Amino acid sequence: MSLSEFSLIDRFFAAHAGSRADVVTGIGDDAAVLALPPGEQLVAAVDTLVEGVHFPLSTPPNSLGHKALAVNLSDLAALGAQPRWATLALTLPQADNTWLEAFAQGFFALADAHGVALVGGDTTRGPLTITVQLLGTVPPGQALLRSGAKPGDQLFVSGTLGDAGLGLRQSRAAAQGPKPDADLIDRLNCPQPRVALGEQLRGLAHAAIDISDGLLADLGHVLEQSQVGATLWVDRLPRSAAFQREVEVSSADWFELPLSAGDDYELCFTVAPAQVESVLTRAEALSQPITQVGEIEAKLGVRCCHDDGRAYNATGRGYDHFA
Amino acid sequence: MSLSEFSLIDRFFAAHAGSRADVVTGIGDDAAVLALPPGEQLVAAVDTLVEGVHFPLSTPPNSLGHKALAVNLSDLAALGAQPRWATLALTLPQADNTWLEAFAQGFFALADAHGVALVGGDTTRGPLTITVQLLGTVPPGQALLRSGAKPGDQLFVSGTLGDAGLGLRQSRAAAQGPKPDADLIDRLNCPQPRVALGEQLRGLAHAAIDISDGLLADLGHVLEQSQVGATLWVDRLPRSAAFQREVEVSSADWFELPLSAGDDYELCFTVAPAQVESVLTRAEALSQPITQVGEIEAKLGVRCCHDDGRAYNATGRGYDHFA
Repeated sequence: MSLSEFSLIDRFFAAHAGSRADVVTGIGDDAAVLALPPGEQLVAAVDTLVEGVHFPLSTPPNSLGHKALAVNLSDLAALGAQPRWATLALTLPQADNTWLEAFAQGFFALADAHGVALVGGDTTRGPLTITVQLLGTVPPGQALLRSGAKPGDQLFVSGTLGDAGLGLRQSRAAAQGPKPDADLIDRLNCPQPRVALGEQLRGLAHAAIDISDGLLADLGHVLEQSQVGATLWVDRLPRSAAFQREVEVSSADWFELPLSAGDDYELCFTVAPAQVESVLTRAEALSQPITQVGEIEAKLGVRCCHDDGRAYNATGRGYDHFA
Repeated sequence: MSLSEFSLIDRFFAAHAGSRADVVTGIGDDAAVLALPPGEQLVAAVDTLVEGVHFPLSTPPNSLGHKALAVNLSDLAALGAQPRWATLALTLPQADNTWLEAFAQGFFALADAHGVALVGGDTTRGPLTITVQLLGTVPPGQALLRSGAKPGDQLFVSGTLGDAGLGLRQSRAAAQGPKPDADLIDRLNCPQPRVALGEQLRGLAHAAIDISDGLLADLGHVLEQSQVGATLWVDRLPRSAAFQREVEVSSADWFELPLSAGDDYELCFTVAPAQVESVLTRAEALSQPITQVGEIEAKLGVRCCHDDGRAYNATGRGYDHFA
């Protein structure tokens, strides 16, 4: 049995509105009214997940709720912003209470973990499409941008790379092949945005981006906007225990998945040598592993190389929806 | 030939970013950075248009660009907010340059007319779905809410009602029937959000809402949230010249379309008797017709009646996506 549009929104989402003191008017009016802390700048990100494009049909709805918010939290993390408020535009083929309950559970568990209030939404009928807009704040002039990298900076990434891409491949092959690795599926379905790390990088990192389309593609945006180049040490790319169990060191995947698979939602950032010690200390205080994977150089372009100095020729270049 | 996702965004949208002094960082980073005027509150709305649900397949892409923004401008108008920044999440079956150019033309013509800068977006592949989030500002405590109506208030609507619903019906019947009325199609495809009126109602109106789901449904939200009722004078509902050409006074449509068809994007608002003169003066200064269509009363519910006092029993109750 289907509920009316308004009951849907009320039942599954409105109960969670207004969970922050800075929400003046939340869900239930034509628009939300929100109070920024005096002097702070507003940060706004938007990302869409489409069924069959950004996630397999088999993805559990609670994972979708988590991931739809996580990819936006990751965008705010890349700027060093503090997330505050979200809106949710949810297009669904039908009003399915079980699906909605699970979706809401995943969404709000992550929202609560990051202190985010849902302040608006639009539930419509159509092919499953989820758009979250996330709003947050940053002290004036302190946002970490893609354009700030400088020659001599050390290039870092957080966490491990390639897990989500490998999980996606295993998930797609699962009908005919072995059961996917649970750790990799967790990385694919429930990415953990590096919000705390992003906030700690304010005033220390020169540039930052989140890794959604693959390290090479996203680093490329930083280099292009900063008008610099980089050397990337492919042997030092951080690989998880699950990744190392599943992938041969001698295989192309050992390099290509961490370089190009995307969906990792780790941060890639550059730090002047004088600030590296402070960054390492702050990351350690968060128990957040970070790894130096290269250096920023004046010469444009990306040069991938092995530790022994041999060049590595990457084949992949990141995910492109229309390629 | 398809462009890459990033080229698409660059080519059609990024050229328009940063057209306001308060855009610190626009399209091109993980998120936008925006500067609010000191002391103002943030207002955020989100609305989605889905092909085949919110617009017929025949809708021209420039109309879609216009309408996707217009429905959100209408939400901000209902709060009396000043629109400033938009993000656009556009899901498209393929990268079609002609379509995108026309869509962008419609979107930016309206954005420019209201001084709105596009500051972020996400272009993805999938069934045609358009989500716009609009951000604006309002002086603290001055947002017009649904919850402020009081017994004794006069009930007003702007413009005319029922045109878009009639245009939609004619558009659907056009394959077998006569050519739709151009004025009605214009009202359906290119609604003019009442932003200037909304700003002028600040400090004067007690409550406001925009009419997207039909007057009865949207007025119902105001009454429910204000814990009041209303009498609605169905003979006085404002009907356009085109509407009067196409609909018989004696027909059910004469009443039902203005009451329930929706998609009008006019404002419905309530004003204390002492403020009515000021509201009429401000509306006249804007050349914005407004019409008193009823009164707010303490008794809950809506009572529709004719000018001679006979009750009118409405059959429609507004649009419900999942009904």
